[in-house]
Amino acid sequence: MNTNRQILLINRPKGMPSQENFKLISSQIPEINDGEVLIQTIYLSVDPYMRGRMRGIKTYTNPYELNEVLTGGVVGEIIESKNDWFSPGDIIEGRLDWADYSVSDGNGIRKVNPTIAPITTALGVVGMPGLTAYFGLLDIGKPKEGETIVVSGAAGAVGTVVGQIAKLKGCRVVGIAGSQEKRDYLEKELGFDVTINYKEENMLQTLRKKCPDGIDVYFDNVGGEVSDAVMHLINFQARIIVCGQISEYNKEQPQYGPRVQRFMLNSSALMKAFIVGDYADRFQEGYNQLGKWVQEGKLKYRENIVEGLENTPRAFMGLFMGENIGKQLVRVLTES
Amino acid sequence: MNTNRQILLINRPKGMPSQENFKLISSQIPEINDGEVLIQTIYLSVDPYMRGRMRGIKTYTNPYELNEVLTGGVVGEIIESKNDWFSPGDIIEGRLDWADYSVSDGNGIRKVNPTIAPITTALGVVGMPGLTAYFGLLDIGKPKEGETIVVSGAAGAVGTVVGQIAKLKGCRVVGIAGSQEKRDYLEKELGFDVTINYKEENMLQTLRKKCPDGIDVYFDNVGGEVSDAVMHLINFQARIIVCGQISEYNKEQPQYGPRVQRFMLNSSALMKAFIVGDYADRFQEGYNQLGKWVQEGKLKYRENIVEGLENTPRAFMGLFMGENIGKQLVRVLTES
Repeated sequence: MNTNRQILLINRPKGMPSQENFKLISSQIPEINDGEVLIQTIYLSVDPYMRGRMRGIKTYTNPYELNEVLTGGVVGEIIESKNDWFSPGDIIEGRLDWADYSVSDGNGIRKVNPTIAPITTALGVVGMPGLTAYFGLLDIGKPKEGETIVVSGAAGAVGTVVGQIAKLKGCRVVGIAGSQEKRDYLEKELGFDVTINYKEENMLQTLRKKCPDGIDVYFDNVGGEVSDAVMHLINFQARIIVCGQISEYNKEQPQYGPRVQRFMLNSSALMKAFIVGDYADRFQEGYNQLGKWVQEGKLKYRENIVEGLENTPRAFMGLFMGENIGKQLVRVLTES
Repeated sequence: MNTNRQILLINRPKGMPSQENFKLISSQIPEINDGEVLIQTIYLSVDPYMRGRMRGIKTYTNPYELNEVLTGGVVGEIIESKNDWFSPGDIIEGRLDWADYSVSDGNGIRKVNPTIAPITTALGVVGMPGLTAYFGLLDIGKPKEGETIVVSGAAGAVGTVVGQIAKLKGCRVVGIAGSQEKRDYLEKELGFDVTINYKEENMLQTLRKKCPDGIDVYFDNVGGEVSDAVMHLINFQARIIVCGQISEYNKEQPQYGPRVQRFMLNSSALMKAFIVGDYADRFQEGYNQLGKWVQEGKLKYRENIVEGLENTPRAFMGLFMGENIGKQLVRVLTES
């Protein structure tokens, strides 16, 4: 393969993203300059937050530019190096191109140790989603033994880690997900105490039943009516971690719901939104702890792998249709 | 005066409170037992939070019971004491009856030093509203020099203190209030940088103009559409202090507005609700600092005083009609 296939964003999604928003092009494999490395993509990550960057509005990250190559989490191999910190054969992870090859000056890529866990985990349980769960739950949620914690998007890459860490901390964990298969996985394989299928239940009634002692911590990946229902049941000094709002990302306008402030005032509650980058100075702590838990078998994970760079847009769209259990990846190069 | 007039809650307000919810009765001046004191009310405080307790629903405080005497902030004089900690003639403050006389066992009342500031301030700037402003702003808001802080309900007992403390911390202070008289007071007497009359302006457009650098801290006493507008302009790591929601207290159902989570996620924002009681172990620190600022002339205040216990319900209702600038009090006994 002498060409570099790349995926461009050619127009901005209105509502649900579709194939028409993306274009696959072929170009030359880039040359590298002093200080740079050439990376061959092995796995790509698709993540819900990318939908926000496609809107073209400046938020916490810069928007994707039209007609440029999309970027996201990549695990790849150093093919060529003019940077003293990296050698050919090194496996690295970083935010790189949706492409067969990327160039990096070494900033924002990190070496992955394949002996700790499979390299795919550098995009999942020991990568950005794992860190997101770790810092959001422990730093904002501060779960205490015996507390009730509710996780929305419980079967996703972040939610699965949140629930398991909460169990490690001695909490009663209630997971909200959208299928029986997801419920079974969470309860039988990950040890969640209770799960709820939000598509089949009246959320407020069901939460009342399943959370008889109220809700102390709510880790919110979803937003919308699920979160509206949770507000009715929060306990005194509850902590609400706003991590994602996947139910709203494809909406052009802010959606309306019952205002949260009065519920919060009734319980002196905390709501804190964050992105994982807020904890950049503590990433190594997170990698160490998550890697240790994985090695000890305390943190389980599942990956959903789509084959082929050309199928990346479809894998991305699948995130918004609830297709994945655990981490959604794209395999770009078959490992040798 | 040998009788004790008392005000009862005889039915629960639907929407705006009215005279029909209250009843003035006369009874005997109570006898006291060992360990108790008899207090003659000098001033009563009326506060927006009381509306919540009239709903009959358990929140952070127990609801007022029907056909019982209402309670609230009182400054009074010890008339008779069978408690070693208090002597006749002492001026005290505490949560006591809407009545000419109250009995206390000494728990929850504190002596007021009339040489620091007029005794009325024990219900205002050096009392519960002052503490509310002090802890909410400093502990949750953590204002930094040069930041922009917006205060809703800016001309009220809490808002006036919030704005002045924020000025002492070197912030640019934007006050939202409901009349030109209030605006003039805030800008000319209290040194607010900018004020906005929410009744006359499109809040979002006006806030955009008046907060060109965005909003770092929002101290919310009001809620509703004013708060909806603020969300559009919050900066990265903004802090939102939910102290009151006076625009919603007379609504039977939670009101709908644009969901806040997406705005918060775009700026890694914090929203924290609180009541002053959350800081009970630090009250003395607050009294000391607020008293010092008042004595130094750094903290100004205004009081709005209605005469006569029988007019307490009317003074209370006035809170929801925006009648008061600063602290709303009722004088029950003319000071000798």
